[in-house]
Amino acid sequence: MSAKAGPSGTLSYEQSGVNYDLIDPLKVAAQRAAAATAVHLAAHGFSEVKASRGESAYVVDVGPFYLASIVECLGSKSLVADEMHRLTGRTWYDAIAQDTIAMAINDLITVGATPLIVQAYWAAGGSDWFGDAQRAQALVEGWKRACDTCGVAWGGGETPALAGIVEGGRIDLAASCTGLVNPKERLSVGDALAPGDAIVLLASSGIHANGLSLARKLVERLPQGYLTPLDDGTPYGEALLAPTLLYSPVTEALYKAGIAPRYCANITGHGWRKLLRHPAQHTYRIERVPPVTPVLQFIQRHAAQDDREAYSTFNMGAGFALFVKPEEADRTVQVAQAQGIDAIVAGRVEAGPKQLLIEPLNIRFGDEDLQLR
Amino acid sequence: MSAKAGPSGTLSYEQSGVNYDLIDPLKVAAQRAAAATAVHLAAHGFSEVKASRGESAYVVDVGPFYLASIVECLGSKSLVADEMHRLTGRTWYDAIAQDTIAMAINDLITVGATPLIVQAYWAAGGSDWFGDAQRAQALVEGWKRACDTCGVAWGGGETPALAGIVEGGRIDLAASCTGLVNPKERLSVGDALAPGDAIVLLASSGIHANGLSLARKLVERLPQGYLTPLDDGTPYGEALLAPTLLYSPVTEALYKAGIAPRYCANITGHGWRKLLRHPAQHTYRIERVPPVTPVLQFIQRHAAQDDREAYSTFNMGAGFALFVKPEEADRTVQVAQAQGIDAIVAGRVEAGPKQLLIEPLNIRFGDEDLQLR
Repeated sequence: MSAKAGPSGTLSYEQSGVNYDLIDPLKVAAQRAAAATAVHLAAHGFSEVKASRGESAYVVDVGPFYLASIVECLGSKSLVADEMHRLTGRTWYDAIAQDTIAMAINDLITVGATPLIVQAYWAAGGSDWFGDAQRAQALVEGWKRACDTCGVAWGGGETPALAGIVEGGRIDLAASCTGLVNPKERLSVGDALAPGDAIVLLASSGIHANGLSLARKLVERLPQGYLTPLDDGTPYGEALLAPTLLYSPVTEALYKAGIAPRYCANITGHGWRKLLRHPAQHTYRIERVPPVTPVLQFIQRHAAQDDREAYSTFNMGAGFALFVKPEEADRTVQVAQAQGIDAIVAGRVEAGPKQLLIEPLNIRFGDEDLQLR
Repeated sequence: MSAKAGPSGTLSYEQSGVNYDLIDPLKVAAQRAAAATAVHLAAHGFSEVKASRGESAYVVDVGPFYLASIVECLGSKSLVADEMHRLTGRTWYDAIAQDTIAMAINDLITVGATPLIVQAYWAAGGSDWFGDAQRAQALVEGWKRACDTCGVAWGGGETPALAGIVEGGRIDLAASCTGLVNPKERLSVGDALAPGDAIVLLASSGIHANGLSLARKLVERLPQGYLTPLDDGTPYGEALLAPTLLYSPVTEALYKAGIAPRYCANITGHGWRKLLRHPAQHTYRIERVPPVTPVLQFIQRHAAQDDREAYSTFNMGAGFALFVKPEEADRTVQVAQAQGIDAIVAGRVEAGPKQLLIEPLNIRFGDEDLQLR
């Protein structure tokens, strides 16, 4: 890991150890090879929804409805849970179980899918990982509770012991999810997105499960490490472990309320730059930003990040973006709030060059700031 | 790892480091919690196929067809590929890519599903794993080729860099797969299985991807380690890396030939005991066994295993079992052979206590020898 802070003392995501320059060529090669396999669907009488290539979930037209599927990883948040367990004796595996499911569910719903089935992928560094009954039970309970919240069936999964591949005492948590876009009109891969549409931002609960490499790196700078208190007294490690919000109750409630988002963006890695995810040329003007959760304020301050760096890395209080018709914006906020998730009408889509303007903070991100395909 | 050989010099699977006594309580708790989530499907107008709980793939009735899904892990075969790369300079990641997809596909088809979509889960021990362009390219190419063989669309996936969770220089490979049972009559979760049905065994290519912990442990006993030649001169490590056969071309060809298996068993962990997978009380009488692949003969000899131990651990030449109506047995063999996969009519299902009788080897496995649910 290249772990040094920058010249100004700023800790950036690149400095926290993940080098996308090494991963991206593989990703491009894999995406090309994957795209070339879509032809096989024709032999079964089906076809892919081409616009879903490069989106958060892959969508196939199987006739009466669309089938959406995905596999997603928790990332390194389990390392925070492990360290906090060492420091406090408490297990947070119920919380990170929810994070893992959220990673899959919150991506799957962006295409308009109702999540139906989740499979668990829990790869431990050896069979002895499963010998801690309290931790294992917390993982099972948290996983089930998240399935209950999202109304999905937990189909099964895989619990391999991978000594020599996964580190001893650690676990690699991931989830796959399958859902249906049903009726097909719910598909929201974005053809309908147009100037004038409103941008509604749903609140986040904290850091969620992206940016953890930086958050973990930051601990070295803190006087009491993970036990350093935030302004409200919550230890930093505990605040980091607030589980990612599950947004499918909101998207399902929106459907029942007759509101069909034109497009959705799950705000994960790359922070607010994810608002630029749609391939079309639009300007996204943000006139209101949501309150920043205390743990993200704390990180921004201690990592000495300016707003541009922070908003390009973290969710900064906004976990999910819904692009809706302007006349449906206020009702979208109400529907989300009725599900217990705060929301604001933050701005709108405009004709213009591809850019995101966060006016209250005087930040501009251009097309060059987000290259995902 | 408890790595000592038994008193007689025999190396058993339990001695190779995986302790199922630690994993099984978690599995049982997870299966119970998972089963309790099936009720959620009713809110969407759907229901689970209850008989698929505990089977190799989870099946949901979504109206016009059944939806089947799964996530599966390669296991520790990548460690053999890494070591053979060190010894020979050649990459085997194209081969183990096929293994990974086979783990998912060969399980999914047991329920009668046509696999449609595969997602890749490639979790590396750090971004630098992806810096070896030759290895990364082999992984992509092998993955695509396996998708081509099975006629599935590669939807996308996840390529996280998980330093601190996955060991440096290693990768955790897994695949999720979604398919349809279409028409619904293709469902083969086993209600139809009955005395008189024939057991057709499809050939394996070698060890496939189960029993690798033992196969790796065995290397310590071999004079030239992974380079120790088999009788035919092939180095042991290379023989281990023969990729798992993909059986979906056979099951798809059977459907086109009008043959609907009553039940299927993918012969993976627990070796031939998987023939006892069906929950009903039947006796399975095997009158012919297929030839044992050279690498499995070699392992059995050097691990000093008797036949009972070997057949309870490895596939011993049979990678997949099809239970078909007796009058369709010969045609099933022909259809498999037309797809380039050898097959034999090995025996039949009989009324009687739950047991597997491998007559040519005088082996009996009872219900107590396989507890998966």
